[in-house]
Amino acid sequence: MIDFQTDPTCYRHWKLRFEGPVAHLIMDVDPAGGLFEGYELKLNSYDLGVDIELNDAVQRLRFEHPEIRTVVLRSGKDNVFCAGANIRMLGKATHAHKVNFCKFTNETRCAIEDAQENSGQSYIAAVSGACAGGGYEIAMTASRIMLIDDRRSTVALPETPLLAVLPGTGGLTRLTDKRKVRRDRADVFCSIEEGVRGQRAIDWRLVDEIVPPSRWEETVTQRAAEAAATSDRPEGAKGVALTPLNRTFAEDGVTYPHVRVAFDRAARKATITISGPTSMPADVAGIHAEGAAFWPLAVARELDDSILHLRLNEPELGLPVLRSEGDPSQVLAADALLQDFQADWLVREIRHYLKRVFKRVDLTSRSLIALIEPGSCFAGSLAELVLAADRAVMLSGTRAGDNRGAATIALSPLNFSAYPMSNGLTRLQTRFLGEPDSVEAARGVICHALDAEAADAAGLITVAYDDVDWDDEVRMLLEERTSFSPDALTAMEANLRFAGPETMETRIFGRLTAWQNWVFQRPNAVGEDGALKRYGSGIQPTYDFGRV
Amino acid sequence: MIDFQTDPTCYRHWKLRFEGPVAHLIMDVDPAGGLFEGYELKLNSYDLGVDIELNDAVQRLRFEHPEIRTVVLRSGKDNVFCAGANIRMLGKATHAHKVNFCKFTNETRCAIEDAQENSGQSYIAAVSGACAGGGYEIAMTASRIMLIDDRRSTVALPETPLLAVLPGTGGLTRLTDKRKVRRDRADVFCSIEEGVRGQRAIDWRLVDEIVPPSRWEETVTQRAAEAAATSDRPEGAKGVALTPLNRTFAEDGVTYPHVRVAFDRAARKATITISGPTSMPADVAGIHAEGAAFWPLAVARELDDSILHLRLNEPELGLPVLRSEGDPSQVLAADALLQDFQADWLVREIRHYLKRVFKRVDLTSRSLIALIEPGSCFAGSLAELVLAADRAVMLSGTRAGDNRGAATIALSPLNFSAYPMSNGLTRLQTRFLGEPDSVEAARGVICHALDAEAADAAGLITVAYDDVDWDDEVRMLLEERTSFSPDALTAMEANLRFAGPETMETRIFGRLTAWQNWVFQRPNAVGEDGALKRYGSGIQPTYDFGRV
Repeated sequence: MIDFQTDPTCYRHWKLRFEGPVAHLIMDVDPAGGLFEGYELKLNSYDLGVDIELNDAVQRLRFEHPEIRTVVLRSGKDNVFCAGANIRMLGKATHAHKVNFCKFTNETRCAIEDAQENSGQSYIAAVSGACAGGGYEIAMTASRIMLIDDRRSTVALPETPLLAVLPGTGGLTRLTDKRKVRRDRADVFCSIEEGVRGQRAIDWRLVDEIVPPSRWEETVTQRAAEAAATSDRPEGAKGVALTPLNRTFAEDGVTYPHVRVAFDRAARKATITISGPTSMPADVAGIHAEGAAFWPLAVARELDDSILHLRLNEPELGLPVLRSEGDPSQVLAADALLQDFQADWLVREIRHYLKRVFKRVDLTSRSLIALIEPGSCFAGSLAELVLAADRAVMLSGTRAGDNRGAATIALSPLNFSAYPMSNGLTRLQTRFLGEPDSVEAARGVICHALDAEAADAAGLITVAYDDVDWDDEVRMLLEERTSFSPDALTAMEANLRFAGPETMETRIFGRLTAWQNWVFQRPNAVGEDGALKRYGSGIQPTYDFGRV
Repeated sequence: MIDFQTDPTCYRHWKLRFEGPVAHLIMDVDPAGGLFEGYELKLNSYDLGVDIELNDAVQRLRFEHPEIRTVVLRSGKDNVFCAGANIRMLGKATHAHKVNFCKFTNETRCAIEDAQENSGQSYIAAVSGACAGGGYEIAMTASRIMLIDDRRSTVALPETPLLAVLPGTGGLTRLTDKRKVRRDRADVFCSIEEGVRGQRAIDWRLVDEIVPPSRWEETVTQRAAEAAATSDRPEGAKGVALTPLNRTFAEDGVTYPHVRVAFDRAARKATITISGPTSMPADVAGIHAEGAAFWPLAVARELDDSILHLRLNEPELGLPVLRSEGDPSQVLAADALLQDFQADWLVREIRHYLKRVFKRVDLTSRSLIALIEPGSCFAGSLAELVLAADRAVMLSGTRAGDNRGAATIALSPLNFSAYPMSNGLTRLQTRFLGEPDSVEAARGVICHALDAEAADAAGLITVAYDDVDWDDEVRMLLEERTSFSPDALTAMEANLRFAGPETMETRIFGRLTAWQNWVFQRPNAVGEDGALKRYGSGIQPTYDFGRV
């Protein structure tokens, strides 16, 4: 099992050094620490295990270290910053592992950018030594790339000439969209195995600054301090410890305090039930006192972990069914706290983390069906899951023999602002691209409990069934869905979920990723004579030179 | 050899009927008229041959029929509008053929939309009978979809449940971006084999109007007339006949009057040399008098045909090298005509056709290198090819033993407006996303002959070499390029060529196409037990249910 939970005491590949408002996040990969057998993580190359630690570090820097305003990304090795994803690992990995590895890597990189955009933390890539492929892709997540001008250190995206794959974890897209490198220069850059250094790296917008070795450390320190000075991170605040998740893994599911995942392997589905909160703190001090136990943060962490678990460890469960149980008014009370105290640094972090978790849901290549039944609590933030689902099915009225009232959905102000999708729009805006008035109409019923008829009229659900039809209709829907080709569903959902505008993020996950996944199927890359398999063997790959 | 040239006297699959300002473009596919053996084009299903005729018809309606203001797309069969791409053809076709077939189909559909947006021709899809898959994708190109309400006629995108592939020739993207169908409804719609009809088709934004059979013909006539009334097509103008291209095919190339394509199979490259014009008509009457012989129109047709020929018939020639020869001032004179008389309907058509040809170049999955040498005429419109190339290499100064002057590049006003890429930006805007001032600087040198140093300073070329280095450098560049994996290059170029904003078009060619190409590699679709192979056999496909 691949576990996405870790903490700094367990890191094998990263070191954190704190100096006042500056953290040094030091990549120092243990060659023997690969997640699987059969490869060595030489030259600061990485696999999913290295990325899991990076993701953890980025999260903890936000939550546990409110004092950190600048993060300096650097290498703990001489001569190499990072050589990118480990090629032997890629050569041996299944298609599904490659795809999910790249997706998680991309998500972590977007999280680094999210910290810079929204949490007052600047990242500076202090590049010393060879910085190639995924290594340069990491560097590009930083708002500033510094390159030591020692005539040995270079930046490079050598994937196409060397490996017959793309700089696919954001590389090509960040080159064009973020760094805005001229396309012919990008073309040259992506064809040069040995990379670019010196003034050309500046002229081509590949790095922001080159620094002579004699002034390297002092300049890095100075840039870190300058970036820290622009931060709005709080003074004197105390971090919130991301305590270990309380999880129980069983053959038929995973259980967390607020999230229960039940596997039905025969039916290829996983029912994810989220429990709403039972009480809320009174104010922002209470939120801080609860810390990682504060329901919105706790549920975000548990949902995040469960989605990642399904992705990597349960590939056959193609249909997560989203359910909830609890008191909708308590969820709305949680949203009220998140709204009222949004200026607080911790509340800000929680909101952005929820946003990232919902994006992770959107980007999960499984069919998502929300079932809204009596006893459920799809209100406010949890209603985002209804809107994230490919379809939402609601039970109209009550159930025979069930004394709970009819199911309802409620929106909160957070549905209108806090959780933009990768496309930059809220899920409501995306849903109602064809009828923008419906967004305004929905705003008019904020905090109203909408029964099935009202939710249907508001366009929030796909279909409602009464108790008589519910079981048969839902069974048929789920059976039908899991009978389809999972590949066609993955591709269809990737297109239908992201209507409207594109952003660098959607272009990474939609266009770049789709092309990389295609390349990851092509014999020229992954065949026995392909570049990924032949890499390091001393034998040149054999290519079919037909263009498609 | 697949030939993209045809004319209405040769059509096997389409009929054109003219009624004043209205043309009826009638799909009536000859089941025995497939491009290859082994399948019958039943139920108005189509293959590339059907699409080649459609593309021809759309072109001729623009150029040869200035009087046509509305085009009614309809079926010549009872009970079926169009059943989409032929599945047996897809099941037998190579990966490369499927990909190129879909690309050309997508381009033709965008051309239909371009006629509506820019040429004053409205398309109305008059859907009677089953309209499924690619059939509905064609219908969606029309600005108005009318559906007969006879309880039998439906619209459907059944690819995912039935065939394990996507509605990939624009279908999913037009559903979300053009029709703006709500995402959960789109999800349902794409899962229903039998399709949608009646009021639900309206409510879900799938069609614009349903019409009872008793009023069908009269309503179609009325809508066609209404649309015609809004057109700015000219009164009393005479069309320009698109006379047959004068082509010579040989083992080592293709020759047209203004375009010469020389194959070097050993080096996997094709050198495309465009000859500039030698004289220009004096005015707009002269342009009309020259008709299809007017150099900009002639060169557009020849380049278009040569690119399509390379795509489908010469897959191993991965590297088209773009050259030109002639007098730059004559090309600028042609541009001056295209600019001065842009209000003329024919000039408008020529400009938009050149725009589409340049887009076709952008979308060609081959590496494009422009070589700018003494004697070349990359000025104005032809300079678009320099900007479309992945790299542009220019010879600086003169050549020993060559009495021609140094090579120059010149821009014309057309480079700043007439030829937007699929992303909606000009090639100059796309090129200079990172340095927008360079666009304005380039505007300042319109019609100046820029030598290599000036072109380099203006950012218009990638690199310049003098005569001493030219041969070796160019040889190394071309050899290096053709040594790379063609798949990695295809994917890399698809990402680097389209920086900046996205449009429905870029989303079709970038995201949707990339996912479809991925699906076209997956055993669940194309394996021996996959859905495309099993379709119609009576045996259910066998799926691997692992999600990637």
